[in-house]
This record gives sequence, C-alpha cells and structure tokens, in this order.
Amino acid sequence: LRGQIAAVFEQVPQMNPVRLLATVMVLAAVLNSGFGGPALPHAIMPAPASYRAGEGRLEVDGAFSVFVEGHDDARLRAGLSRALRRWEARTGLTFARTDAANAAAAKLVIRCDGPGAAIPQLGDDESYHLAITSERAAVQAATVVGVLRSLETLLQMLDSDAAQTALPNGRVQARGETPGCFPGGGFFVPAAVIEDAPRFPWRGLMVDVCRHWQPMEVIKRTLDGMALVRLNVLHLHLTEDQGFRIESKTFPRLHTLGSDGHYFTQEEMREVIAYAAERGIRVVPEFDLPGHATSWLVGHPELGSQPGPYAIERRWGIFDPTLDPTNEAVYELLDGFLGEMEALFPDPYLHIGGDENNGKHWDANPRIQAFIKKHGLVNNAGLQAYFNRRVLAILARHGKRMVGWDEILHPDLPRDAVVHSWQGPKGLAAAARAGHATILSNGYYIDLSHPAWEHYLNDPLPADTTLTPTEQARVLGGEATMWAEWVTPETIDSRIWPRTAAIAERLWSPREVREVDDMYRRLDIVSLRLEELGLSLTRHVDPMLRRLAGDGANAFRLEELRTIADLVEPVKDYRRGGQQPDATQFTPLTGLVDCARPDSTDAREFSASVRARLFEGSAEDWARIMGWFVWWDRAADNLRQELSVSSPRVRALEPLFSRISEVCAVGSHAIGLLDSSEAPPGDWMAKAFADLDAAAVAFDACEIPIIPVVRLLVAAAGSQPERKTMTAEAWRAHVEALAQSAPAADERPAH
Amino acid sequence: LRGQIAAVFEQVPQMNPVRLLATVMVLAAVLNSGFGGPALPHAIMPAPASYRAGEGRLEVDGAFSVFVEGHDDARLRAGLSRALRRWEARTGLTFARTDAANAAAAKLVIRCDGPGAAIPQLGDDESYHLAITSERAAVQAATVVGVLRSLETLLQMLDSDAAQTALPNGRVQARGETPGCFPGGGFFVPAAVIEDAPRFPWRGLMVDVCRHWQPMEVIKRTLDGMALVRLNVLHLHLTEDQGFRIESKTFPRLHTLGSDGHYFTQEEMREVIAYAAERGIRVVPEFDLPGHATSWLVGHPELGSQPGPYAIERRWGIFDPTLDPTNEAVYELLDGFLGEMEALFPDPYLHIGGDENNGKHWDANPRIQAFIKKHGLVNNAGLQAYFNRRVLAILARHGKRMVGWDEILHPDLPRDAVVHSWQGPKGLAAAARAGHATILSNGYYIDLSHPAWEHYLNDPLPADTTLTPTEQARVLGGEATMWAEWVTPETIDSRIWPRTAAIAERLWSPREVREVDDMYRRLDIVSLRLEELGLSLTRHVDPMLRRLAGDGANAFRLEELRTIADLVEPVKDYRRGGQQPDATQFTPLTGLVDCARPDSTDAREFSASVRARLFEGSAEDWARIMGWFVWWDRAADNLRQELSVSSPRVRALEPLFSRISEVCAVGSHAIGLLDSSEAPPGDWMAKAFADLDAAAVAFDACEIPIIPVVRLLVAAAGSQPERKTMTAEAWRAHVEALAQSAPAADERPAH
Repeated sequence: LRGQIAAVFEQVPQMNPVRLLATVMVLAAVLNSGFGGPALPHAIMPAPASYRAGEGRLEVDGAFSVFVEGHDDARLRAGLSRALRRWEARTGLTFARTDAANAAAAKLVIRCDGPGAAIPQLGDDESYHLAITSERAAVQAATVVGVLRSLETLLQMLDSDAAQTALPNGRVQARGETPGCFPGGGFFVPAAVIEDAPRFPWRGLMVDVCRHWQPMEVIKRTLDGMALVRLNVLHLHLTEDQGFRIESKTFPRLHTLGSDGHYFTQEEMREVIAYAAERGIRVVPEFDLPGHATSWLVGHPELGSQPGPYAIERRWGIFDPTLDPTNEAVYELLDGFLGEMEALFPDPYLHIGGDENNGKHWDANPRIQAFIKKHGLVNNAGLQAYFNRRVLAILARHGKRMVGWDEILHPDLPRDAVVHSWQGPKGLAAAARAGHATILSNGYYIDLSHPAWEHYLNDPLPADTTLTPTEQARVLGGEATMWAEWVTPETIDSRIWPRTAAIAERLWSPREVREVDDMYRRLDIVSLRLEELGLSLTRHVDPMLRRLAGDGANAFRLEELRTIADLVEPVKDYRRGGQQPDATQFTPLTGLVDCARPDSTDAREFSASVRARLFEGSAEDWARIMGWFVWWDRAADNLRQELSVSSPRVRALEPLFSRISEVCAVGSHAIGLLDSSEAPPGDWMAKAFADLDAAAVAFDACEIPIIPVVRLLVAAAGSQPERKTMTAEAWRAHVEALAQSAPAADERPAH
Repeated sequence: LRGQIAAVFEQVPQMNPVRLLATVMVLAAVLNSGFGGPALPHAIMPAPASYRAGEGRLEVDGAFSVFVEGHDDARLRAGLSRALRRWEARTGLTFARTDAANAAAAKLVIRCDGPGAAIPQLGDDESYHLAITSERAAVQAATVVGVLRSLETLLQMLDSDAAQTALPNGRVQARGETPGCFPGGGFFVPAAVIEDAPRFPWRGLMVDVCRHWQPMEVIKRTLDGMALVRLNVLHLHLTEDQGFRIESKTFPRLHTLGSDGHYFTQEEMREVIAYAAERGIRVVPEFDLPGHATSWLVGHPELGSQPGPYAIERRWGIFDPTLDPTNEAVYELLDGFLGEMEALFPDPYLHIGGDENNGKHWDANPRIQAFIKKHGLVNNAGLQAYFNRRVLAILARHGKRMVGWDEILHPDLPRDAVVHSWQGPKGLAAAARAGHATILSNGYYIDLSHPAWEHYLNDPLPADTTLTPTEQARVLGGEATMWAEWVTPETIDSRIWPRTAAIAERLWSPREVREVDDMYRRLDIVSLRLEELGLSLTRHVDPMLRRLAGDGANAFRLEELRTIADLVEPVKDYRRGGQQPDATQFTPLTGLVDCARPDSTDAREFSASVRARLFEGSAEDWARIMGWFVWWDRAADNLRQELSVSSPRVRALEPLFSRISEVCAVGSHAIGLLDSSEAPPGDWMAKAFADLDAAAVAFDACEIPIIPVVRLLVAAAGSQPERKTMTAEAWRAHVEALAQSAPAADERPAH
C-alpha cells in the first residue's frame, strides 16, 4: 500500500517535492534557531525592575485559592476575577469563587494598602512586591493599581510541563487523568522575588480614531492589551480633518456634520473611561487645534479663516483649513465645548494638538494679517502662540492642564503646558530645558512600519543624556502613536501589536534592559498572550488572504499566499502615500500590504541565520538557509502560474512575485558560490547588486525586507578571495561596507 | 545541492514522509472531490424563488456606479453603502461616492416604491426583482427591506476570473496593471433574472444571552450574518435562571442583582434595535416566566413561590425557583416591567417563555395549592394557564401580542397568542389546528451539534403536511435556537454559523430546494462571506489551539492538533452535560471540544468518499481514502508521543488520541481487505465492531464522527463473499444493515 500512496503522490501536481522538503527544512530551522545574547531568566514583558529566581515552584491546580488582606474593593476584585479567568482559560481549570479561609490556606495572598485614585492619575503608585514560593504567591502593593500590575506579571509567569509516567505500553499517563474531565496539574509558577515599579509615570498609546474610525470594541480590546503590558495612558486623537469623533451636546453640528455618523457618544466615552480606570489606565483626549480642523468647520464654517463651505477631508496630508484666532466666536465655542469635555473626561490633562498648521488660510485673509500687525504678533507663529494662550486660559478656567505637540513650544508658552515631542529628541530636550514637562513620541511612530527593535532602543532619557537631573525629571515618559491613515478595525491590532509591547518595556523597565534578542524572545510569548485576550495579531490574516485570493483559491495556494504575506512588509515611513497617491478614506485596505505586518518574523529569523553563518561561526548548513529561498521562490512562482489565473487581485501582484523570485535567484546563487568556495566572474557582483536594486522597488506598498541581508550574501560571495587575506573582523567590515555601498532605491520619493 | 537538501530532510525527525505524502494526498482528494446531485446554477444562499440565467456578464470595475430611482432614504443609502463597501473590500476597487447622472449611465439601478415600515414588522414585503444584463443590474422592490434583500443576493453573485494575456516570457499580464496600484478588472456578475420573495414571514434566530453573556459586538456581528442570509427576526432570550440581562429603570434590583454586571443597558438595546432595523430585522425579546426565573428572584425574593433567599444559578438544567402566580405583587411588577419593555421594544410581539416550569416550589407551598383549589384550577398546569391569562392581559394593555413556548398551549389560551414549538411537529400542528399562529424551533436547535443537513431537511410545512391551507397559513416560520450553556463570545459564531444559513434557506426558499450536496456547496461559499463580515467561523480555532497546547508547541504539533480539532465533533444532544457533569457558568470553555465544530467538514468529505467508493461506482483509489487514516493516525500518534510531554492539557487528551488511532487501524485494515478482495477471518468483523464501539465512547465531550462510516467499511470488508451472490443494491442494503446492527454506545445517558 505504501507503494500505492507514493504513486498517488507522484500524480499530484500541486505539490513540488522540493517545496515540501523546503517546508520541512525551513520549519526545522525556525524551530531550532536559538536566541543570541544574555537572556533574562523569565518571560515577563515589560521586565520587572528586579527579579530574583527562587527555589521550587508554586503548583497551579484546581485548588488554587485567593485571600485578600488589608484594603479590598470592587476594582481589585474585578481585576482579580479577570486575571483568574485568563488562567482558567489557559489551564482548563475552574477555581473556587470564594476566598480561602485565611492567608495560610491561600495560594495567592494580596495585601493592598489602600485604593489609590479611583480614576487613575499621573504619578499614581504602581509599584508592587511579588514573592512566590512553593507555598504561595504573595503580593504587596500600596494601591489597587499596583495590585493589577502585579497580577499581569504573575499571569505571565504561568508555565507548564507534563512530567510523564512511562507505562508498559510506551504511552504516557496523564497525572490525575479521569475520563470525561480535565485532569488538574502540570501548571506552575516558578519561585521568585520581584520588586517592581515603572521607570516613567506616563506610558501611553495614542490612537487616531479620526482618519479611519475605530469603534468601541477596538478601543476596549486595545485597553486590554495596554493593561497586559502595563501601559497607563490611552491618548485618543478625537478630532482631525477627516472626522470629528466625539458627541457634543452643546454644539451638535460638530459631530453630526463632521463624522459620517461615526463618533463616540458621551455615554460610550464614559464607558471607555470606566473600562480604562478599571485597568489603571488614564484617558487623555486630544482636540487638534487650530489646524487639522476641517471637520470642525463642516458644521461651523463661520469659525474658519476662510469663508467655506467646508467638507470632511477624505485625503491624507496637511490641509489648509484652520480656525480663525481673531474671531471671538471661536473662543466662545471652545469655551463651551471644552467645558463640556472637562465634565466628560476626568483626567486633568487635555491635549490640544497644535501641530502642522500651515498658515495658508491665515496668509490669505487680510483681516487676520491686520490682526497680527495690530497686536504685534509678528507672524503666524506669533498668532498661533496668541491662540494657544487664549486656549490655555480657557483650559485653566476649566481646571485642565494643556498638552500640545512640539509646535506649541514658544517663549510665551506658560510653564505648566506639557510638550509632546513628535519631531525629535532635540525638541524634547529644548522643552525640558525650558521648564516644561515633556512626553516623547518621536521614535515611537508605530504607523511608520519600523521594526520593534528600533522603537525598543529609542530611550527618552538615554545613558548619555545631557539634561540635568531636574530637567530629566521633567521627561514624563512617552507614547506610541497609531496614526490611522492605513489601518482599519480589521488590521489595527496587527499594527499596534506586538511592537507596542517593546515600547511599553522601554518605558517601564530599567534603562539597562535593552538586549534585543531577548526582547524578541519575550515579545513572541507576549504575542500569544495578547492574541488570547482577543486581539488579532495574526488571526485576521488568513481570512483576509482568502478574500484577496477569491473563491477559486485552494488550501495550497492560500498557504503560498500566506508565505508571501509573512515575508513582505509594508513600506516604511510615509512611502505608502507615494505608492497609493490616489488613496482616500474610502480606499479599501484589504490588499496584500494590509495582510503583511511590519517587522516580518520570517525575514528577521532568516537574516539572523545568514549573519550567524557569515560572521558568527554558526555551523548551520548552507542548504538549510537555502531552503528559505526555495520556499519563497516556489510560493511566488506557483502563485504566478496558478492562482493568478483565477484571481485578478493575485494576478495584479505578479510584479511583486517576480521581484521575490529575483531576490531568491540572486541569493541562491550567492549561497551556491559560498558553499562551493567558488569565486564569481568579475562582473557578477555588480550585476547581482543591480538585480537587487531593481527588486527593491516597492510594489503595491510592499517591500521585501530580506534584500539588505541578500546584499550581504552577495558581498560575501564576491569577497571570497579577500577572505583569505583578512582577519575575520576586517572581512566582516569589508563585506558590510560592500553590501551597503549601493543602498536600495525606492521608486518614489517620500512625501 | 538538492542532495544536501534531501540529506537535511532525512535528519528532520518531526516529519514522517508517510504523513507528508498523506497530507498531499488528502488535500488533493478534498480539492478534487465533486458534489453529487443536481446543482443550482448559482452560489446564492438562500436560493431565490426563481433564477433564470441570462447571456453575458456585468463587469464590476472602478467605474461601477449607482442610480436610485423612485423612493430614496437614509436606510436605503446606508444599506447600499455597506453593500458596496463589501464589494470594495473583495475587489480592492474604490467606487464613486456620488450617483451616476441617470439610470442609463449607472451599472446598478435601484427602483424602490416606498420606505416600508421604518421598524420592520411581521409580514413586511421583502420581495424583489433583480435583472442583470451586461449593461446593468436593475433592482425593483416595493420596500427598502426588499432592496436590502436584493443587494445581499447581488453581493453573493460577484464572481471573478483573470483571462490572461500570454506574454513572450510565459508570464501573464494583468489587465490594466499599473505599478503601485490595484488594477481594475476581472470581477463580474453573470447575467440573470431573479424573482424572489420569502416562503415564510418569520425567519428567526434566538440567542440566549443569559447562560453565557454575549456582549454588544457579538449581537451586532450576528445581525450582520443574519442580514446576509435574509433572516428577519432576532429573538433575544433575555432572562434565565443564570442571568437577568436587560436594564430595568423601574426595578433596578432585577438587573443589578441578577446579572453579575453583564446586561444590556436600555441605551444599548436601543442601539441593537436600530442596528437590526437598518438591516430589516425585528428584535423580539423574551422574558421567561414563570419558571427559568431564578435571576428575577435574587433581587425580588418576595415574588418567589418559596421564601428564598435566591442566588444566581450557576449550573445547567431545570431548576425549581418560580414566580408565585397567587401573589398580586408579581403582576404589579410585571405590569411595570413589561410596560417599560413595551416602550423599549417596538415589535408588537413579546415572548414570555413559559417552558419547563417543574412546579416543585408550587407543590411545596400550601398557600399556592389552596389557591389552585379555591379557584378551580385543577393542578399546576391550570395555575400556569391562569398566570398566562393574567400576563396576556397585561401585555394586551401594553399593546403586545404574546408568544410562548409549547407549554403555554392550553384550551383557555386566547387565540391571538403565538405558540413557539420546541417539542416537535405535533405541538406545532396542534397549535395551528387550535387557531394559533405558530413558529417552529424543534429541529432547529443548533446548540445540539447536529449537522446542517438535518436542520435543512426539517421543513415547518413538509410536502405531506396534514394541515389545511388555513391552518398552514398559521405556520409563520421558524427560528434557530442558540442556547448558551456551552458557548462563549469566542466560540458562539462557530456554533451559530454556518449551519444557521442552511436553516435560513429552509425558511426563505421554495420547499423544493432541498438538495443536500448542493446546499453544502453553497454553504461553503457563504461561509467565506460570513467570515469576511468579521464573524469567526474558523479564525478563532488556531489561537484557541495555541492556548490549549501551551507555549511549548511548535507549528508542526499545532497543525496536528488542528487536524484532530477538524476531525472530531462536540457530542450531540444534551450529552455534554453528562460528559462534564460538574460544569458551571464558570467552567472555561477552552478545550478541544470548544475548538471542534459541529458537522466536521473533513468527516463529511471522508464519508462521502467512502460511500461513493463502496456503493456508487466511484473509481477513486482506495489508497487515496486510506490517506485520511494515515493523516489522522499520524497526528494522533505524534501528539501522544510529543506535545503530550510539554502540555498537560494535550496529555489529558491521550484517551481520545488512542480512540482515533484505533478507528484508523480498524478502518485501514478494512480497506486493506477491500483493496485486496481478501475475506477476513471468521471473528474479524465482530472484533472490529467491538473496537469501534470502544472508540465510540465520547471523551472530554468529543466524539469521532467517522465511526459510522468506518462501520460501513468493516461491514463491507466482512461481506465480500456475499458480494458475489447479490445484486449491488441488495449488497448495499446488507452492508448498511450490518453496519447499523450494533449502534455506538455513549458512556453516559443523556440528561
């Protein structure tokens, strides 16, 4: 019969044995790949300030029980209940719903000193002490929020094994096995002592709900993810040229005419705030002023710097419509509106944006220019500073502290305004020196598709900071920013996560925790926890690919499309706008680029293998590395030959498939040369680099992230003669310089 | 190099070549499998009343535009906009946001006579006429809801191809290809004329939000799915022993004490009703009375038939707590509460449940028994009828018509009460004969894990009905019922869908549309559309399996676990309660059974292959069919040997893996005998049946659905001598009788 099976296999045209072998090989390579660098002794992310491993382990079984000492309240209980539900989901166990009789009888003892602020505030005490022995886990915290943070750490420490009892028949016997129900056992938390407190008090995520609307369920699951990685500020960017996303009862024309019906009611926003507070997260609203304000003017054109009419902006970029700072009606509306928002948002900080006002409508309005002259405001910047002072006075009357982007920094800006830096470390430093509290977002722009490690190494206060200790104390922390030109509710989780977890670690953990390989090791595990919470880091990808491929696709072709989607990355920075210049708010974001994720895991692992083999003495077989090329090339080639026939959208990707095949061909050739220690012909390297340059032209907003490392392979293959004449270090430097000599070009300039 | 690759492959222990081959073979078999029976000439589900294919096709490209003639309103526009968004997501095209200049310039012309009821009502005109030519699609409908139904049909008709232009290099050229943006083209709708109207006016889905809470996002996406398959009633089961899920402003103790905080605010319910109305769906609330009422009594113990106190019920089953019909305060509360609900729910129908009151608390209360005697009510049934009359009078005062389950049927029941039949066709017929309007749910209990075809063939008015035409007219339709003992927001979509689409077709399409194979063909396609809408038919499975397997699982082992999860099915009927007798509302539903789905596609395709090969002259190679066994057995065996070592929960499943291996061993042996035309030893068949009986004992609420067809294989293998002496038909009957002679036993009785 085995012969028959083999014969059937021979008849199956869909699967190429080489590709099958490559699959096996690639997967094996991934599974066997280690992680360089010193690893932390745990999987916790963000890493705690101090972790000391103990002896033994605390078993987690059906008898797990809790005792709460000291302060106890509904928020603590709700958090505890959510935490234990997650453990129940993972273990299949059901824990008791009533407390243990006393601390001695409990497996988890919580001692909390007091409630802390019911609505989280800047500077809340989030510290905790967590001691785990084989007897119990004991949490001590000053506030309920500290307890919540400790529970997230404890949840991340759950581990399992399944020490087996060999039976005579060679099978394994599950401990406590009972037919028809889950056996207990096998789950545990290792003994340890953890002292933890955040490095920065402001650890945020900004979500732009304007350019693409993000409904309640997105906000809630985002808050779930934030709580898991101990972020404590949700900054909601609520107004933009493309949408006014909060209900105003006083000025209903704002949201009814400025939103296409997609806005948060005040009732919903109260629900968001309560949901966040339950998780120890502040909600800071942003109302972008006086620019980025088209949507305000749709219902209130009389407040604009030009007569209007105005329509909701559908394109991306910087637009001209701006509030008229010389019009007293503007301040009346702001006073009423911000008063309403003061009552809605309990946080004392309120973000007024203030960025990217291009001043064109001011320039074009003689009355406004006359006002500048009359009041000695010098220029548009002076006018904006005047506007900011007026707004700040309104906010002060409503008991709010103003936050604004870099542009609000001006000698006249009162010291208690907070400067949010998106332009760079210089702005941050300047603001801190000028006496302002500051928050860093430059380097945390997760919408720009950079890899996690870049954000991770971006420190608000690096070791070589030139700020004085007093100035350093003004650096409150940072925020990841999820600008929403290119995300929908379907894809936003995969753009926020898992990279934001790396930023969360940067903002929570000690400066010294910065080992990239170990960060990725723990990031992969945190990703599983985030997906368990209901976030969609990858689960949306297969359904999206099925839609992209059309109903004619079979499982093989979908697997190939997945292979490509897992390889490519969205173009970085602002280049997607160049790739899709006609895109608007209505453009469907359901293409391959939307299925791809930034910071491709496959590309990262491949690159690590190549570098290790080339420079770090790895003994890995070249054939194993070659397997990746076989795998990617077969996928691209099969898609081009087969799924392209039934699917118009796959066929449209053919230039991308060709580029991938080209990269694989060049890379395979280089490996062949390296493997055989054969020197290439004289013009080979130049030709190979030129081919790679051609393949590096982005297509349909996708780029092929392995090109830099394939350039390394080419440079190495072409430098084999030099290898004999150089030290290993010199050769590596030579190869890297060679590989970088002709950087990959993009087809259009950034915008 | 290829040799090297092969050598690497040899070293990879994880993959067995046989399993690899089996994979290929199985997938190929699935892909090549045809569908028996006469197929409809389209993929529309529910099938329209009349479909005539035309000549040519309507191209769908970026120039697609719309013109609305006659009535036009916001609901129509919102529905149109949602529909076109879905086409945009599938095609990658962006359509114009403004109408065509006139009908002649439009690709889609909608002529609507009038708005219809703003809030959908029973008997609304949902009919439409849809004519598609190569010029345009033209919709005619009497109401906006008719237009919405036509758009769902039109959306389902989108097809694509990619007629290719061969280039000299052998590559294909995408029509309109432009680097950096999607090309248009390749999408079309085939020409056809469709006349459509539903067979029944009441086509519902009941969702129990009590036993396990289902939040807003579940309800909304369920409504999206319902609209896609033209269901028009969402019946919300809002109160139960396990939870009181609607806010009462008049009696806030009901929801605050009866719900654990999980209930719909009235504001949220208004949002649900509006969301449903936008999609032409009624919302009918159910408040189960006087039994199933524990949660009412938590806050109002004074209304119970026993003194209390009461606590929210956490277990499953039928419980004793019951409202006291002799207590006037009960009617006062109901009058106030139902008055409040009257204002909240616009639909004239209101469901009062009325089922499964066991009467024990009435029996135990002498005052209640004295009341029965005093008022000549004879017994508890008489008392419940008295209660129902009182409730009906309250409802009548509030302008509502009463709906109740079978048990409300009583000679005294006023004719205008609607009887909802859960017990069987007899009850339905009896109610219709007694003059009541009726709805069928017996046979549509999707919580019981039966396959789609069973529900599909269950006709409220089968061809052989004995009801008179007048009585038949009283059968309004039916409802699928999603009782929620075993579903969470994570799994509920996969329990409702896709089977409910088959029920939707039964209730919408002509009685004669009942070809099972063609239903499954179209169900597979509708499943893709449902998943595109954001429902999770299968996308939750991999994340759940990762959680089940634990962090030690690699991609191979997860694939194997997926293989098992795709094979097994949850036990049918009420047997899960027997399998998990200690389960409560708190039991995590994250086991393999929760990853498995009813009506396993793999099992269905395997069974079809076997039956075709045995009885229908299929020339399929036995090796191909054998491949399934190899595939399943290897997965089970590898999991038992490997993932079991690191994962306690996988190890706990070892008895299930053993049963699967046993079934595969028996089946493989039978195929070997059939393939070699060898007769087995005398006691082989009895032994094989016994082995299958042992394997048929459910484990951890999972059953192996291929056992019946493996019994067929065994019977066939054991009946090879008879084959020569019998006609094909006689042999088939012999084999089927033999296979059924010893039905598989379950380990515990149903409860």
